[in-house]
Amino acid sequence: MSKLSDLGEKEVVRKILARVATIESGSVVGPGDDAAAVDMGLLYLVASTDIVLERTHMMKGMSHKQLGWMVAAVNFSDIAAMGAKPIGLVVSMGLPRDLEFDLLDQIFDGILDCCESVKGEMLGGDTKEASEITLAGAALGTVSKRGILLRKGARPGDLLAVTGTMGLAAAGFHSLMHNLTLKKAEKAALEPVPRVKEGLVLSASGMVTSCMDISDGLASSVHALSEASQVAFEVDYSAIPVEKEVAEVTKATGIGTEEMVLYYGGDYQLLFTFKPEGLGILRSRLGSTFSVIGKAKMGSENLLIKGGKTGHLEKRGYEHFT
Amino acid sequence: MSKLSDLGEKEVVRKILARVATIESGSVVGPGDDAAAVDMGLLYLVASTDIVLERTHMMKGMSHKQLGWMVAAVNFSDIAAMGAKPIGLVVSMGLPRDLEFDLLDQIFDGILDCCESVKGEMLGGDTKEASEITLAGAALGTVSKRGILLRKGARPGDLLAVTGTMGLAAAGFHSLMHNLTLKKAEKAALEPVPRVKEGLVLSASGMVTSCMDISDGLASSVHALSEASQVAFEVDYSAIPVEKEVAEVTKATGIGTEEMVLYYGGDYQLLFTFKPEGLGILRSRLGSTFSVIGKAKMGSENLLIKGGKTGHLEKRGYEHFT
Repeated sequence: MSKLSDLGEKEVVRKILARVATIESGSVVGPGDDAAAVDMGLLYLVASTDIVLERTHMMKGMSHKQLGWMVAAVNFSDIAAMGAKPIGLVVSMGLPRDLEFDLLDQIFDGILDCCESVKGEMLGGDTKEASEITLAGAALGTVSKRGILLRKGARPGDLLAVTGTMGLAAAGFHSLMHNLTLKKAEKAALEPVPRVKEGLVLSASGMVTSCMDISDGLASSVHALSEASQVAFEVDYSAIPVEKEVAEVTKATGIGTEEMVLYYGGDYQLLFTFKPEGLGILRSRLGSTFSVIGKAKMGSENLLIKGGKTGHLEKRGYEHFT
Repeated sequence: MSKLSDLGEKEVVRKILARVATIESGSVVGPGDDAAAVDMGLLYLVASTDIVLERTHMMKGMSHKQLGWMVAAVNFSDIAAMGAKPIGLVVSMGLPRDLEFDLLDQIFDGILDCCESVKGEMLGGDTKEASEITLAGAALGTVSKRGILLRKGARPGDLLAVTGTMGLAAAGFHSLMHNLTLKKAEKAALEPVPRVKEGLVLSASGMVTSCMDISDGLASSVHALSEASQVAFEVDYSAIPVEKEVAEVTKATGIGTEEMVLYYGGDYQLLFTFKPEGLGILRSRLGSTFSVIGKAKMGSENLLIKGGKTGHLEKRGYEHFT
């Protein structure tokens, strides 16, 4: 009998998906992508779900308001990854009976702030008694049938890109753990911004061939796009945008910059591929808020080019249960 | 500073709703009803969320498969209460790292069985590490704009009715606790059936003026409909359908039948009001699967008529945190 800790999160999800995938489905995307998509006639309804738990997610220095923001943000991030416009959020809350109501109020502040930031609504919820604060969200959105962004769809020759910068949330996490007070990095870790605006632009451009959000680290996400699209990626490490705070954490703690840039989660930026002829359109609409970091090729081995050397891109990242 | 246990679930929800209700909302129903409803042009998208936790919900004798069934059932029950047709379900799972994968597989069996029973799809999910099994579902459905059923809408003169029978889940719970082996009652407690078919018939009849599902007990639900619709109800105790198992539990344990019928949750039947002229239509379409138990009047005091005496219907039922 295998325990979840023997298998690890990715394998647990793979085994579950193997079961669900055998079900005849009217859903367009269904389990395995960032969110499910349901055919509603003129458009797709997109639905994601993600759960945030006090013991797992409430890192040192995180307020209850930020925990509330987090459950909304991670769900809207999945909606963003599909190129969808948010409708709103429902949140089921498991709460300890001795929780101060004031703290619940603060959790709500965070949820409502994040909903407002993406023009989504707080649609409803449920409260039950639990042994730790448990916030389970489900976000809804809509996207045109032509505009939906999936993990599959990248073709050889497509360019690989990310919004924002990599490793900043990791740097923030370590800043909090080691009292480095790198405020910008800490904010990235504590209040990740769902890239809804960017997702809508990517969707509308007609040039984007695949997309997902980076929740468990860049390397892990590159491998996920690779598997879903059946292409291999060549990632140019020098092209990955990294803020100076990441190097400052390396200097102060010895934790490798590459480790934070490639193998840590929490940035919630978008990773996407697009047709090379789309570069001009995307630059004109997104400016410098995204960076081309590689390209798609035939094959299945994902490569990392760094310091003139080409090596295998390790397939690891943040994983639960292990 | 008030703790949640000082306030009780109903008051916690009331205080939260007071905040959310001040937000300008494009949602038609929003927080406070069984589910949210979003205008999608030709119809309403209905979304509910409900969380099931191992320590709170996994009663004696409940299998992991039944816990999986439960999270789907309680969510589809909210969809049913709105008169909506299920699309499907997303489930976020918080799971202990030492959980056997086989038990997770059984949880999935239950979720999938319940989805199939209402012709809904398992659309997607998420897994995270948690200290107890935590299953948070969000169900989606659609309903025509004319057909949506809300808690508000009952008018004086309307008849009050329930589907199924009352107190059977309570009897099942006590049968499990006292080893009475009342199998039918135990099944009602462990595998509640979301009344999706009945909800669709009520919606299509054009005669139903308000509706909700009975999760926390009949009395509590009558008060909720009363408050939402701004009418008072007169409930005829002798008209409430009760299975013989409830009396058997009373005989064996001394727990009052009236207590189980009025003040226990878990039945997940529908409580609804309808125009008196609709009785024939509803009888022809639902047969004896529903019972008229009272009527709506002007006012705000809900009354219980029992043994020729009229008294106040107590406002209590199952409540978390207290």
